Amino acid sequence: MPYAQALTKAHEAFLTDLFPGDGCLLTPEAMNVFATDAGRERAMPLAVVRPENRGQVAELLRWADAERMPVVPRARATNQVGAVVPIHGGVVVSLLRMNTIIDIDGQDFAAVLQPGVVTADLQAACAKQRLFYPPDPASVKTSTVGGNIATCAGGLRAVKYGVTRDWVLGLEAVLPGGRILTMGGRAHKDVVGLDLKRLFVGSAGKLGLITEVTVKLVPLPEASASVLVGFRDLATCMDGARAVFRAGLLPSACEFMDGTVLDVVRMGNDIPVAQKAKGALLFKVDGTSEGVDAEVRRLTQALDAVRPLSVEVGVDEAEEAIWDVRRSISPGSYRLRPDKVSEDIAVPRSKVGELVETIHRTGDEYGLPVLCYGHLGDGNIHANIMFDGAAEGERATAHTIKDELFRLALRLGGTISGEHGTGLAKASFVPEQLSADELRIMADIKKVFDPNDIMNPGKGW
Amino acid sequence: MPYAQALTKAHEAFLTDLFPGDGCLLTPEAMNVFATDAGRERAMPLAVVRPENRGQVAELLRWADAERMPVVPRARATNQVGAVVPIHGGVVVSLLRMNTIIDIDGQDFAAVLQPGVVTADLQAACAKQRLFYPPDPASVKTSTVGGNIATCAGGLRAVKYGVTRDWVLGLEAVLPGGRILTMGGRAHKDVVGLDLKRLFVGSAGKLGLITEVTVKLVPLPEASASVLVGFRDLATCMDGARAVFRAGLLPSACEFMDGTVLDVVRMGNDIPVAQKAKGALLFKVDGTSEGVDAEVRRLTQALDAVRPLSVEVGVDEAEEAIWDVRRSISPGSYRLRPDKVSEDIAVPRSKVGELVETIHRTGDEYGLPVLCYGHLGDGNIHANIMFDGAAEGERATAHTIKDELFRLALRLGGTISGEHGTGLAKASFVPEQLSADELRIMADIKKVFDPNDIMNPGKGW
Repeated sequence: MPYAQALTKAHEAFLTDLFPGDGCLLTPEAMNVFATDAGRERAMPLAVVRPENRGQVAELLRWADAERMPVVPRARATNQVGAVVPIHGGVVVSLLRMNTIIDIDGQDFAAVLQPGVVTADLQAACAKQRLFYPPDPASVKTSTVGGNIATCAGGLRAVKYGVTRDWVLGLEAVLPGGRILTMGGRAHKDVVGLDLKRLFVGSAGKLGLITEVTVKLVPLPEASASVLVGFRDLATCMDGARAVFRAGLLPSACEFMDGTVLDVVRMGNDIPVAQKAKGALLFKVDGTSEGVDAEVRRLTQALDAVRPLSVEVGVDEAEEAIWDVRRSISPGSYRLRPDKVSEDIAVPRSKVGELVETIHRTGDEYGLPVLCYGHLGDGNIHANIMFDGAAEGERATAHTIKDELFRLALRLGGTISGEHGTGLAKASFVPEQLSADELRIMADIKKVFDPNDIMNPGKGW
Repeated sequence: MPYAQALTKAHEAFLTDLFPGDGCLLTPEAMNVFATDAGRERAMPLAVVRPENRGQVAELLRWADAERMPVVPRARATNQVGAVVPIHGGVVVSLLRMNTIIDIDGQDFAAVLQPGVVTADLQAACAKQRLFYPPDPASVKTSTVGGNIATCAGGLRAVKYGVTRDWVLGLEAVLPGGRILTMGGRAHKDVVGLDLKRLFVGSAGKLGLITEVTVKLVPLPEASASVLVGFRDLATCMDGARAVFRAGLLPSACEFMDGTVLDVVRMGNDIPVAQKAKGALLFKVDGTSEGVDAEVRRLTQALDAVRPLSVEVGVDEAEEAIWDVRRSISPGSYRLRPDKVSEDIAVPRSKVGELVETIHRTGDEYGLPVLCYGHLGDGNIHANIMFDGAAEGERATAHTIKDELFRLALRLGGTISGEHGTGLAKASFVPEQLSADELRIMADIKKVFDPNDIMNPGKGW
């Protein structure tokens, strides 16, 4: 049975009754902003609704399943792959009105919240109680915990603390048909049953609609410090990272910037990296203040062996200044070209050097600059292929380079996406990474939750 | 179609051909040891096989699916719930000959191994390269990584490092019908597809048979120290744990022992806990040596506020001596009664005090001693209900207490099993924890992998 192609009068009446006032948007003007996300694709939904509670969501999904109405859950839509673009029409469900922090418990070391809470807001509320929710995607100040769970967001601190998946203790989700599924809870250990809650993490809205979240917390580390290190070339940069890990240190972040990135950032600011550096690493360590002091000492000692060109240690405000270098990469990249294709491949950590070298060579061959930076500690590299959309053929060339990068990552034993997901942008590449058996199993598991395929249809796994 | 009830001549020929020599056991004498595990139940299989490679496993599962032959994977069988008892007969598959560590990579921070490697052997091999695989169930010296993955083993260090699930990067599993499924790999981040590999973790052999494992490693912490603290009563003991976490410390272990446990341990040895203590906590911290010193200082300072009766700090050999106290609990418990029912409920951390108090009261009411100890940091308490099987009615009374404990854990928002799983022993309680919807979904997901229900049938989720 095909999807509903238009809203009948009865549909409209149902939606406006269930979501009164501006809880339901039906005009093209009002829905326009919900037609796209941080990627490039767009498609108009038939309706946008903004539930305020799980009861509305359950009623909506009961109806949507019966009417074969696609449902696309959405929060701040910071994803870059078209993951929440309603390409089969249907109803976009904005979770932003379900944004209550229900409880932050400093004894259970757990927080219970609705999915629309902005991640940085949760972290700030936790910090007031000296508690810590570590996942920190770059979008942390705008994206939501629900969105982070739907995409299994990673971020800077994954080296030490893992990704969003590792912090989910419990989930409540509404399934097509309207059943409310409660999975897990506040207990930090639980081995009863298949781990359905973790299956939801990273499922990109394809299994059901998350309406409540329980995450694990840890004590807020007392202190942190960061170290920005410049190296003469890429190989030395990789050697530096190896030396630090080999010294028994587990930094909370280990970020990499290639020479082109440093050039770009330098155009905007003086940065505390040696002028001649062709690569840099940015480490963060956290713990007790004595522990942090010791780790900074060990870290700089470990780096001595590879003779870095510059070592800048930052604590307190100086630490924030160091991170400004990292934060200025993405805006600064547009100094090279007005457009970019931004990918986030990940490979086994030992392959990062080969990956970056090959990416640069590929960029050179095709005559476009490619910036490589990102989470070296996880082998997760952001490659920004810069181009000018107004210049003949450059967009197509950028996409050709992108295709080569995906295949390179797979050849190196990696993945086409460490963080961003596949959505529309990478859907066609998924079968190059996942086997036919895996894809069949995933499709069959989806059918268990969503037999009529109404949840975010048409996206890659 | 019912399960095969006996081996035909053709079955025997198939098995002895695929598993030559002592790779296939068919006599009751040889199979006897494979009829049970560390629990109390037993049932004879029709055959026991000992594969040495994935090819044999694939061929076995192709045949078993066609013949409706139950397949029960098994390694060291340290589980206490009958999880690998072949109650529907069929073939027990011992994975102990697939025990090769294929690679330990100090750059990728990953280890690749066959499932039959003993966990402590992996840890020792990692330590030689100053690498660390943190999961450490109490059975670490005898149980295998494959078994740990099948059960999502927890252990002492879960407070800081999480459980086995959090360390699995990749899995290879053979499914009924003989297909080999490869999931994940060495990349530390990967968001492509549903996370099938983590779905296998804790699935207790019910989805397929794991034949290769890739786990994440971290640098081996340079130093550690442990602190054993005696408290005047249970409430102060809980206050002490709270004070430590509130001080911003995240110990790698936070173990609890109640007054009865201390009494029992004292019967065997002098222990470094104040004689009057009615509860104790055992903390471990790890990191750089300076960091460890600082954490021990902070930890003992934080405890000052609750006025502990004794504080014993152990480093190096003295640290091992402190842990001997913890290790002597289980053998020591038999000084009270010759038999026990041992459970491992978990609750939100704030509820541990209430849990332990209620457990003690329940034991008193029924006239049996109950020891409570375990992983306070995870809210995961091991309750040992001691009884004398030769004394009229004591066994039944112990099981009545156990039933009350399960319901108590659920009432407190917890789980009937934080680590041990459900197997046969707790299968009947699973529907009290999981909803009908969850159970239906789990059954349907199992059908996706194992449509004929040949994988470890008859066990609880």
